[in-house]
Amino acid sequence: MVEFQTHHLDAVFHALSDPTRRAMLRRLTEGEHSVSDLATPFNMSLAGASKHIKVLESAGLVRRHVQGRTHMCQLEAARLAEAQEWLRTYERFWTSRLDDLEEILRDEDRAAAQAAELLPKPENKPRRTK
Amino acid sequence: MVEFQTHHLDAVFHALSDPTRRAMLRRLTEGEHSVSDLATPFNMSLAGASKHIKVLESAGLVRRHVQGRTHMCQLEAARLAEAQEWLRTYERFWTSRLDDLEEILRDEDRAAAQAAELLPKPENKPRRTK
Repeated sequence: MVEFQTHHLDAVFHALSDPTRRAMLRRLTEGEHSVSDLATPFNMSLAGASKHIKVLESAGLVRRHVQGRTHMCQLEAARLAEAQEWLRTYERFWTSRLDDLEEILRDEDRAAAQAAELLPKPENKPRRTK
Repeated sequence: MVEFQTHHLDAVFHALSDPTRRAMLRRLTEGEHSVSDLATPFNMSLAGASKHIKVLESAGLVRRHVQGRTHMCQLEAARLAEAQEWLRTYERFWTSRLDDLEEILRDEDRAAAQAAELLPKPENKPRRTK
């Protein structure tokens, strides 16, 4: 059986508990980015972005290296694999309740679709011509 | 593509970032337990345990119900499945680096085995007889 390093899991799950940090990781899936690149979409100061990146670094999810005068960040995915391994040990508890999960995800998809499309409420139903 | 509810993920990953809460979830895989049952192995006050359980409840990982005068807790695994789904989107980044992961896990297994067995250092190598 795989032994989990509890301090790794503490740090990884803590790093993942923030939406900005998750979005930064998502961004790094496209390739490496500078700290200021990572800060831009969040309208965030370099200091603020750097703080988040430090949390990701200390969880072992991001590696930072200096290129000329720029700090570049790179995704390190191995610790995410450890987190997934930990979650996998619970699989038998949710596979028996897949119907519940499907319903949750379907509700969420619907909510996301509605939010994205900002559907106008139909005031007059067009008549069916056929 | 599955849309993730960001506030679910915030709450689930935050709940999982604490070793006591992870141990409580592990305990609940055996079946439901009372709050005081869950507090016992951690030598923790009921108030302390209750605080942790509230974090698990608000993340949707535990359901609490009253049985007579006892508060019973039950594992709710569906939100763990959402967290795993989120992690799964990163799989391609670690499967390409499976060798690194294997090495990390092997090191951790070795460290855990050494800690558990407190192996004495061999002073004399036995000679091979054949």
